[in-house]
Amino acid sequence: MEAAARTNQNVGVTSWCPLFQNLKDKAAKLGKKLKKIGKDDPRRILHSFKAGLAISLISIFYYVNPLFTSLGSSSTMWAVLTVVVVMEFTAGGTLSKGINRTFATLLAGALGLAAQRLAALSSHSAGEPILLSVFVFLLAAMATFSRFVPEIKARYDYGVTIFILTFSMVAVSGYREEELIKLALQRLSTIAIGVATCVAISIFVFPVWAGEDLHNLLPANIDKLACFLEGLEREYFGEKMGSGQILEEASFLISTYKPVLNSKPTEDLLANFARWEPGHGCFGFCHPWKLYLKVGALTRQCAYSMEAISSHISTNKNSKVITDTEFREMIRIACAEMSSKTGKALAELATAIRQMRTPSTAAAQHLSNATTASESLKTLSPAKDASLPEILQSATTAFLLSEVVKSAHHLATAVEELSRVAHSKRAQEHAHKDSAVKPVAGCETPPHVVVEIEK
Amino acid sequence: MEAAARTNQNVGVTSWCPLFQNLKDKAAKLGKKLKKIGKDDPRRILHSFKAGLAISLISIFYYVNPLFTSLGSSSTMWAVLTVVVVMEFTAGGTLSKGINRTFATLLAGALGLAAQRLAALSSHSAGEPILLSVFVFLLAAMATFSRFVPEIKARYDYGVTIFILTFSMVAVSGYREEELIKLALQRLSTIAIGVATCVAISIFVFPVWAGEDLHNLLPANIDKLACFLEGLEREYFGEKMGSGQILEEASFLISTYKPVLNSKPTEDLLANFARWEPGHGCFGFCHPWKLYLKVGALTRQCAYSMEAISSHISTNKNSKVITDTEFREMIRIACAEMSSKTGKALAELATAIRQMRTPSTAAAQHLSNATTASESLKTLSPAKDASLPEILQSATTAFLLSEVVKSAHHLATAVEELSRVAHSKRAQEHAHKDSAVKPVAGCETPPHVVVEIEK
Repeated sequence: MEAAARTNQNVGVTSWCPLFQNLKDKAAKLGKKLKKIGKDDPRRILHSFKAGLAISLISIFYYVNPLFTSLGSSSTMWAVLTVVVVMEFTAGGTLSKGINRTFATLLAGALGLAAQRLAALSSHSAGEPILLSVFVFLLAAMATFSRFVPEIKARYDYGVTIFILTFSMVAVSGYREEELIKLALQRLSTIAIGVATCVAISIFVFPVWAGEDLHNLLPANIDKLACFLEGLEREYFGEKMGSGQILEEASFLISTYKPVLNSKPTEDLLANFARWEPGHGCFGFCHPWKLYLKVGALTRQCAYSMEAISSHISTNKNSKVITDTEFREMIRIACAEMSSKTGKALAELATAIRQMRTPSTAAAQHLSNATTASESLKTLSPAKDASLPEILQSATTAFLLSEVVKSAHHLATAVEELSRVAHSKRAQEHAHKDSAVKPVAGCETPPHVVVEIEK
Repeated sequence: MEAAARTNQNVGVTSWCPLFQNLKDKAAKLGKKLKKIGKDDPRRILHSFKAGLAISLISIFYYVNPLFTSLGSSSTMWAVLTVVVVMEFTAGGTLSKGINRTFATLLAGALGLAAQRLAALSSHSAGEPILLSVFVFLLAAMATFSRFVPEIKARYDYGVTIFILTFSMVAVSGYREEELIKLALQRLSTIAIGVATCVAISIFVFPVWAGEDLHNLLPANIDKLACFLEGLEREYFGEKMGSGQILEEASFLISTYKPVLNSKPTEDLLANFARWEPGHGCFGFCHPWKLYLKVGALTRQCAYSMEAISSHISTNKNSKVITDTEFREMIRIACAEMSSKTGKALAELATAIRQMRTPSTAAAQHLSNATTASESLKTLSPAKDASLPEILQSATTAFLLSEVVKSAHHLATAVEELSRVAHSKRAQEHAHKDSAVKPVAGCETPPHVVVEIEK
């Protein structure tokens, strides 16, 4: 008996201990994760405090009596609701949602009132609710369908939701409440107060600009590609090329460009928000965000070729083929030249975007050298007795690299176009404003030099 | 004078006419676009009507008096709000938002009440609002920060918004309203009614299942790749290979696989929603949606290699190099074999996913033939006097195709794993349920055959 009881007790202790340990481990893991998230981008912590601040500010409406009584209890709720829903990480996101919310409320409120008046004309007592239901049904169905249009989905999705919501509420509640217009104005003013609070905090308290994020994301991505190419040159086309160990080390390279492959949704979202942002720093209101998307697409094009290179490298890591060394050496030199020069050109393009200037002649020079190296492959001849796989293994990387060189040329042209358009936009804005506007620190541009890039 | 007036009039007419014409053109264009959107997926039209129906149903609460008085005017508003916000295109989306909303409201309501009681303990009269503001600030900041955790962002983002909203409202309004618990219960019940309405309409009226969409999207994407390969064989490696005209015609191929490159966000979203859906049709509750994402990633991997092929084709469209024809003919035959067989294998994989069965031995046979063709390249030797670009131009496509063959092998393994896991999940579910469950029409599976795929 006693022994059995002791065993039971032991079982109890041993079955609880791991559970507790497990929970402790999980909590520690979560803590580490949260810490990393904050460390990766400290603006996230700031944003959390900003959101807390906005909601606390709005809750003051409840405590300060005169304001509260003038706006009414149920309406003040709408200010809280607005703040919670509208506050976004980037200023552009907040502006987009805030403007969508305000205009959708206005439009839908007016339409709702009209629908309600129209329904009131019905002489039959049951006619009014039936007519209103039909209006609500039709409008909700049409608005819901409009969300399938990609352009509306991208820019006005939130506005359409609010439109349906407000129209239904006004049309339906109008049947009950007599002082509808007074109520509508109250609600609109609380929503305006909520939106204004969010927008003010987003823009004036440590603002996070979507445009700036996009402007930083592109060069960061191009730098990743440059890093891949420079690492490739160092580890794979260095003097010790072909030894298995080096290839193992080079496998870290495979991951550098990977995030670029799937960067499209982030870029689209940031560009979409950036359009709503007022001019700030180096960016005018009409900054050519669309061209950023073009540069982003061409960056991905480069990354696709790199994906093929890295897959080629990892495939041939273990196959040992005895080759004619002279031929291979020639290819190695050409590849080293192509990857090193293209890497340098990409790094220069990234810097040019970052500093908002025309790419220097150095970038064009590097690319032209890379093209020369790529052309030099055409004059090579393999040894007489070389078999196809021998040639293929050495030469395919060379071909894929020359594809990267071509993509880099297209990218350079797009970056040049971006800088040209951004310049002229800024020149226009400066002409509109006071002509004595000082250049913003950190984004001075050198005299405009048009660089002819050889194709 | 008169002449001038006439000129002005003319200007007026001519400047209005194009404006009117312009508007007319735009309206016609929009109409065409809307028609196309509806034609592409008629479920969109149905969804719009479903959304209208849900809101009209909820608005009945306003017209049916007994219900209205028992729930209270302001609370009934919450039912309308819930329906507008929760109703999504797919059943999984609606369920995800509905469950998020209900549980977040419950949890935040309870916490809000607790915070309010805690603040009421404060003896000082100014203490209560200050304490409440601090609570709201802290909770809103913490909850906002939690949204940066990718897992929470993906699955519970909407829940966190509702959590902040409800907590702020309960904590803050508690300072004003005495009958808080009664109010909270009323609001919860209206939200529950709204969620139940949406969920019922989403699931029982022409349901759109995210899982089914994902299940159809993958084979459609794989078919696009198969179509590219089969077209490549027909147009590019046919007997007439090398003639410029054929290449021009083949350029239509370039666009077939393009949408696959950026399919990741759609797949992620659908898989995320599919997890919330109850078992339906051939899909159990624990259907292995994660494996679908794996298959999707490997499909994209194939598409990246095709991107390299199509870029190679378009680059060399205009360059004419005189080659040794025998060597080129050998390569052409190998390429034709690789693309045709891999295309057939991919088509079979797509059908296998669609019909939820293990890929047939034919797929493995096709892939094995493609591999044989790829291996045969190793024995080829170019003519003695061939220069590198000549060899490269013919041979690089061959190499890139052999990369596609390799990716297809990986894809076949993943599809096989998917079908195996889906089978065992379904077997488990059948064991749980009545053992005499009839197989669902359209998804019968042949006896389980394990196909060894050569690597």
